[in-house]
Amino acid sequence: MSADVRTEHDLLGDRSVPADAYYGVHTLRATENFPVTGVPISRYPDLITALACVKQAAALANAELGLLDAAKAEAIVTACEEIRSGMLHEHFPVDAIQGGAGTSTNMNANEVIANRALEHLGRARGDYAAVHPLEDVNLGQSTNDVYPTAVKLALCLAAGRLRTAMTELAAAFSAKADEFADVLKMGRTQLQDAVPMTLGQEFNTYAVMIREDTERLAEAQQLLTEINLGGTAIGTGITGHPRYTEVACARLREITDLPVTTAADLVEATQDVGSFVLFSGALKRTAVKLSKICNDLRLLSSGPRTGLSEIRLPAVQAGSSIMPGKVNPVIPEMVNQVAFEVVGNDVTVTMAAEAGQLQLNAFEPVIAHSLLKSVTHLTAACRILAERCVSGITADTERLRRTVEHSIGVVTALNPHIGYTAATVLAAEALTSGRSVRSLVVERGLLTEEQLTDILRPENLVRPARRT
Amino acid sequence: MSADVRTEHDLLGDRSVPADAYYGVHTLRATENFPVTGVPISRYPDLITALACVKQAAALANAELGLLDAAKAEAIVTACEEIRSGMLHEHFPVDAIQGGAGTSTNMNANEVIANRALEHLGRARGDYAAVHPLEDVNLGQSTNDVYPTAVKLALCLAAGRLRTAMTELAAAFSAKADEFADVLKMGRTQLQDAVPMTLGQEFNTYAVMIREDTERLAEAQQLLTEINLGGTAIGTGITGHPRYTEVACARLREITDLPVTTAADLVEATQDVGSFVLFSGALKRTAVKLSKICNDLRLLSSGPRTGLSEIRLPAVQAGSSIMPGKVNPVIPEMVNQVAFEVVGNDVTVTMAAEAGQLQLNAFEPVIAHSLLKSVTHLTAACRILAERCVSGITADTERLRRTVEHSIGVVTALNPHIGYTAATVLAAEALTSGRSVRSLVVERGLLTEEQLTDILRPENLVRPARRT
Amino acid sequence: MSADVRTEHDLLGDRSVPADAYYGVHTLRATENFPVTGVPISRYPDLITALACVKQAAALANAELGLLDAAKAEAIVTACEEIRSGMLHEHFPVDAIQGGAGTSTNMNANEVIANRALEHLGRARGDYAAVHPLEDVNLGQSTNDVYPTAVKLALCLAAGRLRTAMTELAAAFSAKADEFADVLKMGRTQLQDAVPMTLGQEFNTYAVMIREDTERLAEAQQLLTEINLGGTAIGTGITGHPRYTEVACARLREITDLPVTTAADLVEATQDVGSFVLFSGALKRTAVKLSKICNDLRLLSSGPRTGLSEIRLPAVQAGSSIMPGKVNPVIPEMVNQVAFEVVGNDVTVTMAAEAGQLQLNAFEPVIAHSLLKSVTHLTAACRILAERCVSGITADTERLRRTVEHSIGVVTALNPHIGYTAATVLAAEALTSGRSVRSLVVERGLLTEEQLTDILRPENLVRPARRT
Amino acid sequence: MSADVRTEHDLLGDRSVPADAYYGVHTLRATENFPVTGVPISRYPDLITALACVKQAAALANAELGLLDAAKAEAIVTACEEIRSGMLHEHFPVDAIQGGAGTSTNMNANEVIANRALEHLGRARGDYAAVHPLEDVNLGQSTNDVYPTAVKLALCLAAGRLRTAMTELAAAFSAKADEFADVLKMGRTQLQDAVPMTLGQEFNTYAVMIREDTERLAEAQQLLTEINLGGTAIGTGITGHPRYTEVACARLREITDLPVTTAADLVEATQDVGSFVLFSGALKRTAVKLSKICNDLRLLSSGPRTGLSEIRLPAVQAGSSIMPGKVNPVIPEMVNQVAFEVVGNDVTVTMAAEAGQLQLNAFEPVIAHSLLKSVTHLTAACRILAERCVSGITADTERLRRTVEHSIGVVTALNPHIGYTAATVLAAEALTSGRSVRSLVVERGLLTEEQLTDILRPENLVRPARRT
Repeated sequence: MSADVRTEHDLLGDRSVPADAYYGVHTLRATENFPVTGVPISRYPDLITALACVKQAAALANAELGLLDAAKAEAIVTACEEIRSGMLHEHFPVDAIQGGAGTSTNMNANEVIANRALEHLGRARGDYAAVHPLEDVNLGQSTNDVYPTAVKLALCLAAGRLRTAMTELAAAFSAKADEFADVLKMGRTQLQDAVPMTLGQEFNTYAVMIREDTERLAEAQQLLTEINLGGTAIGTGITGHPRYTEVACARLREITDLPVTTAADLVEATQDVGSFVLFSGALKRTAVKLSKICNDLRLLSSGPRTGLSEIRLPAVQAGSSIMPGKVNPVIPEMVNQVAFEVVGNDVTVTMAAEAGQLQLNAFEPVIAHSLLKSVTHLTAACRILAERCVSGITADTERLRRTVEHSIGVVTALNPHIGYTAATVLAAEALTSGRSVRSLVVERGLLTEEQLTDILRPENLVRPARRT
Repeated sequence: MSADVRTEHDLLGDRSVPADAYYGVHTLRATENFPVTGVPISRYPDLITALACVKQAAALANAELGLLDAAKAEAIVTACEEIRSGMLHEHFPVDAIQGGAGTSTNMNANEVIANRALEHLGRARGDYAAVHPLEDVNLGQSTNDVYPTAVKLALCLAAGRLRTAMTELAAAFSAKADEFADVLKMGRTQLQDAVPMTLGQEFNTYAVMIREDTERLAEAQQLLTEINLGGTAIGTGITGHPRYTEVACARLREITDLPVTTAADLVEATQDVGSFVLFSGALKRTAVKLSKICNDLRLLSSGPRTGLSEIRLPAVQAGSSIMPGKVNPVIPEMVNQVAFEVVGNDVTVTMAAEAGQLQLNAFEPVIAHSLLKSVTHLTAACRILAERCVSGITADTERLRRTVEHSIGVVTALNPHIGYTAATVLAAEALTSGRSVRSLVVERGLLTEEQLTDILRPENLVRPARRT
Repeated sequence: MSADVRTEHDLLGDRSVPADAYYGVHTLRATENFPVTGVPISRYPDLITALACVKQAAALANAELGLLDAAKAEAIVTACEEIRSGMLHEHFPVDAIQGGAGTSTNMNANEVIANRALEHLGRARGDYAAVHPLEDVNLGQSTNDVYPTAVKLALCLAAGRLRTAMTELAAAFSAKADEFADVLKMGRTQLQDAVPMTLGQEFNTYAVMIREDTERLAEAQQLLTEINLGGTAIGTGITGHPRYTEVACARLREITDLPVTTAADLVEATQDVGSFVLFSGALKRTAVKLSKICNDLRLLSSGPRTGLSEIRLPAVQAGSSIMPGKVNPVIPEMVNQVAFEVVGNDVTVTMAAEAGQLQLNAFEPVIAHSLLKSVTHLTAACRILAERCVSGITADTERLRRTVEHSIGVVTALNPHIGYTAATVLAAEALTSGRSVRSLVVERGLLTEEQLTDILRPENLVRPARRT
Repeated sequence: MSADVRTEHDLLGDRSVPADAYYGVHTLRATENFPVTGVPISRYPDLITALACVKQAAALANAELGLLDAAKAEAIVTACEEIRSGMLHEHFPVDAIQGGAGTSTNMNANEVIANRALEHLGRARGDYAAVHPLEDVNLGQSTNDVYPTAVKLALCLAAGRLRTAMTELAAAFSAKADEFADVLKMGRTQLQDAVPMTLGQEFNTYAVMIREDTERLAEAQQLLTEINLGGTAIGTGITGHPRYTEVACARLREITDLPVTTAADLVEATQDVGSFVLFSGALKRTAVKLSKICNDLRLLSSGPRTGLSEIRLPAVQAGSSIMPGKVNPVIPEMVNQVAFEVVGNDVTVTMAAEAGQLQLNAFEPVIAHSLLKSVTHLTAACRILAERCVSGITADTERLRRTVEHSIGVVTALNPHIGYTAATVLAAEALTSGRSVRSLVVERGLLTEEQLTDILRPENLVRPARRT
């Protein structure tokens, strides 16, 4: 054996592992078995951090219960803290899409932590008699409780940043809503001119939409804090100490500062992935809303000369390689695409969830992969949209004012005064003749100028103003 | 004009309507424009009922605010109450998939209620000067606030029945869990023998899963009780009386006995369909769980001679037109298919939600159609599954007991005593030799018979039992 | 036993069936087991017709091979022909979503045909000793070859009508393309003004898109003509006569006039549902295109005063219950919703296809249900779109001409003459100043009036016209 | 300005670019605008290669038509050839999900090629007066024809490898089918024992399934070879030379050795993404089949002691961190997950396709991203499945033989001899008593031992063997 490798053993036999690798034989085999996406789990720092949190909590609980030697426990804890601080992530090379229900990810964590702990104890990597990846680091644990717990924690960490980004985006829309509070414009339903509103109301809507979703996301996230740590293989807790579940959960709560709780029924919690499905559904809802908003922004800024041209988005790059001077709504277009991706990911999550069998869902890795992508891409999309688009939007106030004056839609405001049927005739006449509703009303003596002026005052058009 | 038709008028001109029709010209045109699915909205009684609730609340509010003559209001209210009691539903022929954001559905309701109210006032159908579909029945309303409000109410009504059905299904699983509480069997992960559990634990899991989802559904349903009635065309309340929104909501609460509230921002509430998306996501989660459970039931009952044969499902029909005596798991298979349909419906809802533009989502009819199908089919699926399958399931207790005895998986229970590495060697030996783990352990003197007996006692296998 | 019922028997025991029912005990149990959607299979006449075709072909083949008495065969064939002519469909009450891989549908057909054949032979319904649903009508068959064969035939029948409707729709677009051949307008990319084109080019695109899809659909349909009749239970042909497969296929070809062929490997063909998946994919592609086209139509007709207002769609109904005179693009909106439904159905089909296990896919009923809905709804959508929308579209020619003149996008045509970089400066200047590109170019002496006139001639703008 | 940067200019102003960067200001801005997924387009070497092919073909055509100086053209061609050989890919940093319809990708290619060409001409990077990214490299082109053409070519390249991997996988299944040709076993429908077959037939089915899909994929790929190069901005060919389209296509055919052709209608071809949708549908079909096959493999290898245990998959890694000796079907599980991802990607592609507007689909980047992931992940999945799983599968021949002997399903073979009704009674008796069908038949004198022996000979059970 060469000096730069060490030999490790598993149920399939011996294998050489690079001497300087923190990972071991299980990780090695996993990288050989799953060269699938080229995306290593290290691409998701939240997941690596969450694994370290779980392993640290388990070590502390095991030590507290007298199952793990104090020195070993301390070395393991130190290794976990290092990983949580961002160290050693590059030693997690297993592919994001892997068979085995996350076993390879768990093994990877066990091996890196064991070898790092060995260093802290002054031992050589691979000297597993001193600290064993499975018998010590994984003590009292199973992939089937460690892995879903870690994925849930990772999603909570990532979702926190998403909610922050959404809050910032909502604030950007609110700022514009304030700025445009007095800009009167025509509202549209089914792309047809409807009735007046303010551009402020239009932008405020986007703020409200996003803000509501931060609440929905918080609710969905809360379901993720219910974990199955301690259930071991299938939730029955086999090999476990009766107090381990409680103690490990308490330690995890302290370490993560997240309100994690143990599920009431661990057998159910071990096989159920419902919280992922619901979380994915909440992300999808956010994606759909963002896409709708960006569709609107692109529509309202269409032009510059043959479109609606009500607002202008800030230019962030040249729009065309052939059409000089063209500026495109590239930021909203990016957001649309992230939204489409998130909807697709939701289908992937759904299929993976449905495919669970008996006491376990073996397809959690693709669930984790899909959700972590969805959360992080949505976070980026919200931030970029706020900073590079919304905050720089300007309005063509004059043009907007004119559209209201020339609109036929103001006829709706006359309903309470002249009735739907008479108003229908009026609208048709206005459309055919090209004349304004106002002039036709006055000409026919349906209402006086004074009445009209009162009815059509902006403040009466954009709120319920009927008098009996 | 023949005696058996009457003439009605709209912006496109005159049309003959059957004299005995409660609907009018708007409905007539809609049936001509949308011969799409062959599914009339009357197929969804909850939706017709909900429309009548909304119209009744509006009439009461309008009367209270002095906008609508008391006699007219009373006639309208009576017509609505009749519809709510199940009458006149066959006069709602417009297609479930219709353009116009629900306008045809709203028009259909306006016309049927107006004509029925006319009868109550001793007038002829079509005598709209006395009670007008738009100027009276639809007074102060727009399709854009009436229709989404009605769809939400309809879903709440339907969801109540679904939750009842789910509760019954959970109870059926719980009863079986009690019955099988002491039946020891092997749990499986990734379809491979894992560690022991009880069949009771297995069935209890299904009860827990379903029960949790009734809570999630209740939460999603709660979001549906936030309505935009009073927002009229785009949420600004144009043509509306300042107090109408509050009064109409109060009346609707009384009529429906549902905790409906008015959304804080009606412009947002008019265009947003997020509550439908989240509700659909919750239904999808339930569907996925039901499908997983039914996959398990089909797997566990596979056989009779070459499958797992752990449980037997009640026979409900002959299974094959060629294979005599074959009995198939037809009820779970039906549930699987309903689940697949619900997942598909969720994608439809998602796309329709994403397609909303500016101040309205014109695609709410297909959202309503999809969700009402999902809820009602899931309700049927749960009921049938409980009554025709779960309640009659029996277990092959003896066979299950033997599988535990002969399993290799019990070796996991020895981990705390002999270590993972030694246990791996033992498992391999058992697999190769065909011998039992127990006999090998004793033969090698790893543990005494007494120790083994204690470790392998059923009650120690199915719960955390490690001693320090 | 009352005079108006007869007793039938199956493996579960005796049951009373209405004396005048053509169906029997198997159908009865199925209706009790599957009260799911309320949609009986009779809602799909193509499926009932296709079942009758298969049964007729089987009877003819069995008679020819000497396995079935000639008189019985003749009676069965007559019954099948009656069903194919539209009779007796109401006797197919089993639910579209049923467990059992289509067994209940096959049983329903066997029973109706047997009882009708009994009548032709002067026997009482239920006198199965004379003609037996399973031993005679189903002779040499299994649900597992009859049902998928019938579903494929039904889809071929339905797809034929869809292709006709698509051809009509393409023709409607082509007619408009001819009508608008000389109407110059601005093309748009990313909703921003791009370069000139004709409205004829725009509409011709829709014709080309639809026409291409009729070809794709024909290809996907061809895969459906490969059947597994003769494979019986799992494709091995157990109980079958060695020549049955060949003879039955030949008879089916004659009866249906479709180019049906027997799959090369019947074990594969019995379990594989790939042709359904691909057919669904083709339908989805058509749906997506129709939706995109309708999105465009809605966008181009937005207005009347604050939108693009380039074209006007024919008014087919009043658009609003509150906004007088409003006309909405309700036909395209309906098509959008059908498209969303078809995309959802594709997901349902996909999940059902993935769920097949071992020698059979038990979930074909929901595949059939989904695809038959998709095909028939798309057919209706295409017809309605052609007749009630496209054929009546008019253009605002004058407005369109002006948009080209005032556009900045024509600057692209100057690229070959003044370069991208100079053109960029020019475009920015035009945008800022509000001036026309033409006047700026002349003012700066970049090109002469004559050169400009030549470059900007419509025929040079809408085709490659660069000279070296 | 520091020595290690150069200044570049676009319509937004000046920016410093690293002096050693091959990319320029447009790429720089794109990387700032789209920090979304962290996946640069260089992750897809096929796409970079395809872009170089297109640019090379364009340069050659431009030179041939006298539009581009020969020396410039040669330098550009050399740069393209280098990129095609794998050089410079790391200079393509723009994010896979980007707004702008691929403009940033095209700009990135233009800039890298221009700067590399400058080097070949002995000029400094950034000296665009000598070779300009837009006026020379992009001459006569638009993102809107270059980008979709490149994506299609990239998919063709990738699909070629996928078809090779699928062919290898089919061969692996065929080899097993030959090996297991005489292994008799029970077939199953709906997870219930059905009728006998050989394990060879079962594995051959998988080979047939996969092989058929290579043909479907080839057909879908063929649609991708129809390109719109020469259509420029919207398909009208504005700025283009009349012969450019034809010449550039010819050059591209030579360079790529793919049968690329120009679409008949370039306006349609520029906005339509139907070929991507159909290609995605074909990939989805393959994914669904692979998933179904892997579900079967996992089911057939379930055990080792409480499952079906008909086959054994090769062990490739330890299965559990807690259950010693457990070996899991990790390779098929990985394939399942890839399949779920591909189905999700199909939904993403569908939504992006539907979102196209007017003359362009701005969402092609996410279509490209999704499809390239699907193709490459499926390729990996097929290869790994063939090499690390299928080729090492072994069968438990003895166990399989016994299941046939003990099965009740053989009763089906007696149908032609004793009738379905009698056989049903027999099957029920066998099930209840636990006795074999054979002994019951003989005991009751229904058939002689000799008759039975003939009927139940394996070769008669697995093919149509009925005699009249």
